[in-house]
Amino acid sequence: MPDRSLVFPASEYRQRTARLQERMALAGLDALLLTSAADVFYVTGFLTRFWESPARPWFIVVPASGDPVAVIPAIGADLMQRTWIADIRTWPAPVPQDDGITLLTETLAAITPENGRIGLPMGLETQLRMPLGDYEVLRRALSSRQFVDATDVVRRVREIKSDAEVQKIRASCQIADAAYAQVPDFAARGTPLDLVFRDFQIALLANGADWVSYVAGGAGPNGYGDVISPAAPTPLAHGDILMLDTGSVKDGYFCDFDRNFAIGPASDIAKRAHHALWHATEDVLNTLHPGHRACDVHRLLTEGITRHGGTPTGGRLGHGLGITLTEWPSFTPLDQTELRAGMVLTLEPGCSTENGRMIVHEENLLLTETGPILLSRRAPCDLPEITR
Amino acid sequence: MPDRSLVFPASEYRQRTARLQERMALAGLDALLLTSAADVFYVTGFLTRFWESPARPWFIVVPASGDPVAVIPAIGADLMQRTWIADIRTWPAPVPQDDGITLLTETLAAITPENGRIGLPMGLETQLRMPLGDYEVLRRALSSRQFVDATDVVRRVREIKSDAEVQKIRASCQIADAAYAQVPDFAARGTPLDLVFRDFQIALLANGADWVSYVAGGAGPNGYGDVISPAAPTPLAHGDILMLDTGSVKDGYFCDFDRNFAIGPASDIAKRAHHALWHATEDVLNTLHPGHRACDVHRLLTEGITRHGGTPTGGRLGHGLGITLTEWPSFTPLDQTELRAGMVLTLEPGCSTENGRMIVHEENLLLTETGPILLSRRAPCDLPEITR
Repeated sequence: MPDRSLVFPASEYRQRTARLQERMALAGLDALLLTSAADVFYVTGFLTRFWESPARPWFIVVPASGDPVAVIPAIGADLMQRTWIADIRTWPAPVPQDDGITLLTETLAAITPENGRIGLPMGLETQLRMPLGDYEVLRRALSSRQFVDATDVVRRVREIKSDAEVQKIRASCQIADAAYAQVPDFAARGTPLDLVFRDFQIALLANGADWVSYVAGGAGPNGYGDVISPAAPTPLAHGDILMLDTGSVKDGYFCDFDRNFAIGPASDIAKRAHHALWHATEDVLNTLHPGHRACDVHRLLTEGITRHGGTPTGGRLGHGLGITLTEWPSFTPLDQTELRAGMVLTLEPGCSTENGRMIVHEENLLLTETGPILLSRRAPCDLPEITR
Repeated sequence: MPDRSLVFPASEYRQRTARLQERMALAGLDALLLTSAADVFYVTGFLTRFWESPARPWFIVVPASGDPVAVIPAIGADLMQRTWIADIRTWPAPVPQDDGITLLTETLAAITPENGRIGLPMGLETQLRMPLGDYEVLRRALSSRQFVDATDVVRRVREIKSDAEVQKIRASCQIADAAYAQVPDFAARGTPLDLVFRDFQIALLANGADWVSYVAGGAGPNGYGDVISPAAPTPLAHGDILMLDTGSVKDGYFCDFDRNFAIGPASDIAKRAHHALWHATEDVLNTLHPGHRACDVHRLLTEGITRHGGTPTGGRLGHGLGITLTEWPSFTPLDQTELRAGMVLTLEPGCSTENGRMIVHEENLLLTETGPILLSRRAPCDLPEITR
C-alpha cells in the first residue's frame, strides 16, 4: 500500500495540477513538460537529493486534463510509487542510445493531438534539465507539434503559495532563526571564517534542517566585498562585520535570509548602514501590499536607505522564495511583475559602507491582502555585537 | 592584487584549457560555450554555492586559442576576479529583457568566424544551464554559425584527473571515511533514520567537509528497497541493514561511496550478500586495468556477485567521479567507453536479498596504468554490526 503523502496530502498536488491546467487552457496547451527538480517536486511530491547526479533526466507530463504522467529512470520508481502519481513509466537509465526519449515521445504523442501545443519553461530563471541533443530529437520526433514557452503557466501558479506551503517555509525560517541565535556561541574574534561556515551548517542541521543547500557569507572591516564566495580560513578580526546567509531546507522548502554581527563594538559606519537597512526594510514591511510591482519594491528600498542615511548598493534587492532558493519575481528596476497575495518574498537591501564593501540585510515574508507577515524572526534593530 | 589560486594554481587551469583546445581543434571548433557549474569551475576555478539560485545564467567561452572569457552576472565579478581569468564581462543580471544574451552574442561573434563552429555539451549527462528561449535567441543572432555537440571534447578531458585533482578527491574520501567510522556513535537500535541522516551530515562537516551536497541511504530488514529517498523518522530496528551514502565536498571535489551496518547481529542472508559484494569488488580491484570498457566492469561485477553466491541487482554499478557526484562513464551493459589511466571511478555493485530489498556496496578508486588505487578506505570484509 503506497504512502501517498510524502510531504503533503494528495489533495495539495491535485489542486496544483488543477491550477496548472487552468493556466494551460488559457495558454492553449495540450501538455506541459516539466524536467527540473523543483517542478517535478511541485507537481508530484517526489523529493530526493538524487538530482545532484547529472546522469539521468526525469520527465513529468501534465496533460490538458487528467492526472500527470511520470516518465522516469527505473531507479526512481520505488520513490515515485509512494507519491500520488499512478501512471509511472520507467526506463533503465542511463541508456546512451536512447535515454528515455522514445518513451517520452510515445507518452506525449498519445496525450496530444497531431497539431498540438506542448509547453515547457523556456524563460527567465528556468532551465531545461535534459540533454539539449535529446530535446532536439524529441522535437523532430514530434515535428507536427509546436513546442512553446510555458514559463508563465508554471510561474504564476508556483508564485502563489498555499497555506500548507507557507507553513513549511515558516518552519524552515524558524530553523534558521534558531541557528542564527547560536552564532555568538561559535564565532568570535580569531575564529577562522571557514570554521564559522562549518559550525553554522552544523547548527542548522542540529536545529532540524533536513539539509543545507546554501550557505554564504563574508566578513571584513565594516562590511564585505562579495556575498557568494566560499569561506577562506581567515580569522575574524576586531572591527569586522560577519554576515551569514542560508537557504536550508525542511521538507523541500527553503528559507533565505541572512544576519549580520559586529566582531567587537560596531563602528559608527557599520551602525549607520545597519540603521538605514533596518529602517528601510521596516518601512516596506509597513507599506507593502498586493498591486505593488517588483520594481516598486526596489525603488522603495533604495529610497528608504537614502532617506535613513545610507548609500544603496545596486543589484537585485529581494525575490520570491519557496521550493528553490530564489524564485520569481526579482526586485530590480526592470521587473514589472505585479505582486499578489500569497507570494512569499525576501527583502534584501544592501548598503555600501567603505572601500567597495557593503552590508546586506534580509527578511522573509508572506504577502497577504492586508500586507506582509514576517516568516523570519525580525533582525534586531541594533546591530548585534560579539564582544568576547 | 587578485588571488589567482582559489583551489589550484593557475597552471592547473591553463593545462585544462590547453587540453580542451587540443580536443576542440580535432573537432573543428572555433569556440566552446560552457554553462554548467562543473564546467565553469573546471576551466576557471570559480567555486560558489550560488548556483543553487536558478535566477542567473553564467557563460564561459573557450576560444580556439588564447584564454577563456567569462560572460557573467555582475554579482560574480568580485569572485571571478580572484581566479586566473582576466577577460571578465558582466551585466546586471537578472535583466528580463536581455539576460546577458547580447553580451554573449558579441563575445562569440568576435571570437569566431562568420561560418564558425561553436561547441557546447548537448549529450548524455549534460544540461544547458540557461533559459532555452535565450539559447534560441543566441542561435538566431549567430545564425551563420553552427552550434554543435561538444560533449566528447569536455568529457574526454574532464575524465582524466590530474594529480592535484586526485589529491582533492582523496581528501574528500578521507573526510567521509572519518564520518563513517563515527556512525556507531549515533546510530543504533531505536534511532530514527532521519536523525541518523542529520547526525551523519554533522559528522561529515565536523570532519572537514566544506558542504554536504548529497546524503542518501536506507534501512530495512536485510536490506532496503530504494537508495534515493529522504529519510523518514522510522526507528532503526533489530535486523535492519542501515546504509548511508554521501557525496560531500571539499574544495569543490566530491567523494561518493556508501557503507552498510547491521543493527544487531547480521543475519545469514545479510552476511551472504555482503560477502558476495565485498569479494566481487575485491576481484575487480585486483584485475581492473586501462583498456577495459565500462560495460566490462558491469559484467565483471555481476559475474563476481554470482560467483560469490549472491544475486546481482540491475542498474548502473558505478561511474566516474570528480567535480560532480557522478560523471561519465557509467558501468552499465550498454556503455562502451574504454577506461583510461587517470580516471577516478566508483564501483557500486548491488545484491538482492529478499522481498525486493537489496544491499549496495561502493568504493572509490583511481585507475592507473598498473591497476586501481583505492581512494576510499576499504570497507571491512565482514559486515559491521551495531549491537548496543
